[in-house]
Amino acid sequence: MNVVILAAGMGKRMQSNLPKVLHPIAGQPMLKHVIETARAVRAQNAARICVIYGHGGEQVPAAVAADDISFAKQEPQLGTGHAVAQAIPHLDDTVPTLILYGDVPLTRSTSLQALVNAAGDDKLAILTAEMPDPSGLGRIIRENGRIRRIVEQKDANESERAITEINTGIMVAPTRALKKWLGQLSNQNAQGEYYLTDIVASAVADGVEVTSAQPASIWETMGVNSKVQLAQLERLHQAQIAQNLLEQGVSLLDPARIDVRGQLQCGRDVTIDVNCVFEGQVILGDGVSIGANCVIKNAHIAAGSVIKSFCHIEDARVGENGQIGPYARLRPGAELGEDVHIGNFVEVKNSQIAAHSKANHLAYIGDATVGSRVNIGAGTITCNYDGVNKFRTVIEDDAFIGSDSQLIAPVRVGKGATLGAGTTLSKDAPEGKLTVSRAKQITIDAWQRPVKIKK
Amino acid sequence: MNVVILAAGMGKRMQSNLPKVLHPIAGQPMLKHVIETARAVRAQNAARICVIYGHGGEQVPAAVAADDISFAKQEPQLGTGHAVAQAIPHLDDTVPTLILYGDVPLTRSTSLQALVNAAGDDKLAILTAEMPDPSGLGRIIRENGRIRRIVEQKDANESERAITEINTGIMVAPTRALKKWLGQLSNQNAQGEYYLTDIVASAVADGVEVTSAQPASIWETMGVNSKVQLAQLERLHQAQIAQNLLEQGVSLLDPARIDVRGQLQCGRDVTIDVNCVFEGQVILGDGVSIGANCVIKNAHIAAGSVIKSFCHIEDARVGENGQIGPYARLRPGAELGEDVHIGNFVEVKNSQIAAHSKANHLAYIGDATVGSRVNIGAGTITCNYDGVNKFRTVIEDDAFIGSDSQLIAPVRVGKGATLGAGTTLSKDAPEGKLTVSRAKQITIDAWQRPVKIKK
Amino acid sequence: MNVVILAAGMGKRMQSNLPKVLHPIAGQPMLKHVIETARAVRAQNAARICVIYGHGGEQVPAAVAADDISFAKQEPQLGTGHAVAQAIPHLDDTVPTLILYGDVPLTRSTSLQALVNAAGDDKLAILTAEMPDPSGLGRIIRENGRIRRIVEQKDANESERAITEINTGIMVAPTRALKKWLGQLSNQNAQGEYYLTDIVASAVADGVEVTSAQPASIWETMGVNSKVQLAQLERLHQAQIAQNLLEQGVSLLDPARIDVRGQLQCGRDVTIDVNCVFEGQVILGDGVSIGANCVIKNAHIAAGSVIKSFCHIEDARVGENGQIGPYARLRPGAELGEDVHIGNFVEVKNSQIAAHSKANHLAYIGDATVGSRVNIGAGTITCNYDGVNKFRTVIEDDAFIGSDSQLIAPVRVGKGATLGAGTTLSKDAPEGKLTVSRAKQITIDAWQRPVKIKK
Repeated sequence: MNVVILAAGMGKRMQSNLPKVLHPIAGQPMLKHVIETARAVRAQNAARICVIYGHGGEQVPAAVAADDISFAKQEPQLGTGHAVAQAIPHLDDTVPTLILYGDVPLTRSTSLQALVNAAGDDKLAILTAEMPDPSGLGRIIRENGRIRRIVEQKDANESERAITEINTGIMVAPTRALKKWLGQLSNQNAQGEYYLTDIVASAVADGVEVTSAQPASIWETMGVNSKVQLAQLERLHQAQIAQNLLEQGVSLLDPARIDVRGQLQCGRDVTIDVNCVFEGQVILGDGVSIGANCVIKNAHIAAGSVIKSFCHIEDARVGENGQIGPYARLRPGAELGEDVHIGNFVEVKNSQIAAHSKANHLAYIGDATVGSRVNIGAGTITCNYDGVNKFRTVIEDDAFIGSDSQLIAPVRVGKGATLGAGTTLSKDAPEGKLTVSRAKQITIDAWQRPVKIKK
Repeated sequence: MNVVILAAGMGKRMQSNLPKVLHPIAGQPMLKHVIETARAVRAQNAARICVIYGHGGEQVPAAVAADDISFAKQEPQLGTGHAVAQAIPHLDDTVPTLILYGDVPLTRSTSLQALVNAAGDDKLAILTAEMPDPSGLGRIIRENGRIRRIVEQKDANESERAITEINTGIMVAPTRALKKWLGQLSNQNAQGEYYLTDIVASAVADGVEVTSAQPASIWETMGVNSKVQLAQLERLHQAQIAQNLLEQGVSLLDPARIDVRGQLQCGRDVTIDVNCVFEGQVILGDGVSIGANCVIKNAHIAAGSVIKSFCHIEDARVGENGQIGPYARLRPGAELGEDVHIGNFVEVKNSQIAAHSKANHLAYIGDATVGSRVNIGAGTITCNYDGVNKFRTVIEDDAFIGSDSQLIAPVRVGKGATLGAGTTLSKDAPEGKLTVSRAKQITIDAWQRPVKIKK
Repeated sequence: MNVVILAAGMGKRMQSNLPKVLHPIAGQPMLKHVIETARAVRAQNAARICVIYGHGGEQVPAAVAADDISFAKQEPQLGTGHAVAQAIPHLDDTVPTLILYGDVPLTRSTSLQALVNAAGDDKLAILTAEMPDPSGLGRIIRENGRIRRIVEQKDANESERAITEINTGIMVAPTRALKKWLGQLSNQNAQGEYYLTDIVASAVADGVEVTSAQPASIWETMGVNSKVQLAQLERLHQAQIAQNLLEQGVSLLDPARIDVRGQLQCGRDVTIDVNCVFEGQVILGDGVSIGANCVIKNAHIAAGSVIKSFCHIEDARVGENGQIGPYARLRPGAELGEDVHIGNFVEVKNSQIAAHSKANHLAYIGDATVGSRVNIGAGTITCNYDGVNKFRTVIEDDAFIGSDSQLIAPVRVGKGATLGAGTTLSKDAPEGKLTVSRAKQITIDAWQRPVKIKK
């Protein structure tokens, strides 16, 4: 099967410098959603995808380039028929051609497969939809049940306007005939454009059967021309994702307040509280609980872990039965073992922390390798950066890092070592011993409190 | 009155290891909601509650055990009639029996009271509801206004299917007759189960009047069989709670974005901004203002206090005219006096802080007793934990704790004492004086900045 | 044009100590919305505004006082006609009078202008609305299309009750006639009040044409008598604001989860993630991205800046291409130059930070002047407060502040100076050199770890 995706439009109403088809739904460009859907259909119908681009220049190919995609530039842009015609050199005559739109992001592959099936090898198949309010849309005119033509709103008479079955624009055509019909298109109309819709008349004239299929839901055929419509489809899509999660057995405290922008894979008995955002690839193991207002991106949270409110996790891994947050930030490269506790106002970056270790309060752990059963006191900071280089800190098993210590990397705290509170550690701390750097505590007897300076 | 609550079902569609009736609505198991409602009805009709359990074993009794509840195990589970029959030994013949369902959590006690009233001592009363779409539900068949029988969807003829009054399953029966009718039930049906519904036919046959009552809202009779339904009822319930708060005069910036899981008691002129979560017992005094995105559990916030955005408060008490947050965390045992200020990135745990004291920035105050008018500088940390023991810090009235000090407990800062910035306090600081531990500031003239190491 | 705004009502159902018209919608009193709308209408019809107040005493004038507003006290409060009569001394006979309500906050100025236009100089014009359910409201009785009178619900016969065109109470009247009609009002009715509505009968009796206009949306005429209604209008208003932002090309991830309480001005290609709150005057430059759950008040975020999740920004300015958050707090007087990075758990107050400087972790920067390319290490604290006075810290270009340093203001760090980690800086640090205050690191060989104390 050939797939042609029209993605050349300007999208002036988007009021953006970004080409319309690159605006995101659920965190990825609309065009990528269409490509993913095309791939899902194609899986049963091996073929190539041809993206027709134009407005925004090379941004579109750059954003979606892949081995199975070819690109054809439409310049100038003279209508949908003209757009599809740019793909002609890329189309294999021996298989049908599916025509999709880069700004209609939510069509389901099952709906398209039904259309492909309806077309078979030799029919023109149109995805049509029943619209409660069809005004402005092209109506499907049938005679004895057979599609005869499509009438645009402005050309429709009163009885035609009463028709509620409309043309979504999505079609499957026999490719050799499609090429011929595209060659017959005329731009003798008010807009001076070549309309893809006109191939229906050619097909009927050629005695080719015109058939149809319908999507399961009307929103599958909704296009985006403005930020209003983009936001509508975003919420429709998120509602669908939430519904799928619920049906998989995930507990969502509010299905209207979860955003999933990527893949969220959940084990059994997962609970997600209100207002969480998931981005990229996120895996939540069995029994994981996510508190309110968390932002989690590209993360693996293993079974039994509790992520409390206000956590921000990115490119990180939490081991089994972890306790994270509230207000914990796990940055890229944070890898936590089993039963690790990371508490409030703690930042972990590019560090491995082994089982049963804890950093419960106000700390920065960067570029560190932390052993098991380590206790990192409140206010501890790994000084990993000298202004130009970054160095690693190693803290071995069972160490106890006193509060407000600074560990100036590269430095090592030995197994079972203790650092006194407020230590500035510039050399390694030997194992099993107490290491401190502390000035003597003195009291100034004669000291007077500051007084308010008059201004 | 006897109350029988059916709570033995497996709830396979919940896809959970937790028995269905223990899944929470507003933070507590559905079954507990039903028990609370039964207690509210019973208050006017003293009696015992019998919970029929089965699936999930002893988890159900363990979760809801109380002096006024008996339990009967249904094993195997042979239908609703069979379930109620397990309660027979627990039922007092001299009073009627109310039959409820552990997975129908939101019935109002007023609706049940109306049903109890309709039943009187000698009638069978069924809670029925008018459903816009009754398909799949048992229809109430009346003759001359009197209930004659209940017809299940699959057995209904066309005119019966047009009936929109349905059986909710909730009933009140005269107990002696109920026992007799339960004994007459048969499992000669497609499912091979004993249906409670069949007692209606027995009642009619015995000449017992079958009467009815209706709930105020249809959602009172909605049951939960899936996470989709659980989420629907959660939001319906939360919407109801929000409506009640508004009617009590609480200002909610968005009634669709508040979650109350427990009891939220508000004074006059309380304002709650968007996206807050309240759990357990929370009391907000007159004029309290709660900022956006707060999570508050088991807390008392006294009159005039302002809780700014992103606060996390649990098992804590805020005195009058407190100023808390943003990003303040009050952990269990935090008890703040009047006009205490706790600012951003400050954690308070198991500590008393007296009137007019302030900890405005980046601090950990744990296991401390803090006097009045104390100023705790940014970065201050109470070192309350030596790895095995916890000790208390005492800071007396009018002390000034310089920034980034560590107070190694057990330790005391005397009245009006000052700690210099960066002090590691290992011994008590005498009152009225300046105490510091500070190394001499030196400058290294010949020092060269690090250069980038080539790798 | 004269404008009379009725704002004397008690609003008992609000259950508040605040006069009803001072309750906020989108962060400002309802009465202010009405005044703003009146000003917008008046811009084309220069005139004075007279606010009729009463309940709550001088709170109402105090809240909205302005040069173009006069006040008249209504005491006792004897009905709407009596209220308007209090304004008589303030009304210029030569121009018409527009009558508005302080608790009907969302009327659009365009709707009022249409009403003013309908009234001309000599007609009585009533703002009417078609209500799907008009019950309880005054019906507009027309004969041959002309308004003849208004009938209250309780006085209406069956055919009158079927009328769906209702009186909103908003009117424009020729002023000289209005004064006469007000003088003719009677309180001979069930409530013993003087009803403004009764002037319609007087107009008809006088042969003055009674005309009408309709608002674009019904919610423009909705009034607030309870917190339930206040919340409804808040959400309607916020939905309208979100729609306007989308139409201007702003990307909103969820239009139902944004709150704008003031003016939000956005450049091109601005994206706002879920659950953000904007207050006061906020300007977002081209390409700005605001993460989930931010609270931003009176701020200017320049082009290209990225504000990550959980930021709290107030009375602050972020330069171009800034990177802020997550969990960054910018307090009043924070002024950041180009490409400044402020990271997690960092608080900036009353400080200027010049281009390319960074404070990425756990720091308090208060009353500081920070140069360009400065790196402020994790845990750094400016000690700006001695308990009674505040002092400034100056950090010159290219300085490197080691982690966990305390800068005891007034103090200066010279150009290119470096502070070692853990430095307590009590005197100026010379430029280009390393300054430290550090005790020698020692290890206690014989040290024994604490053991658990038995209690």
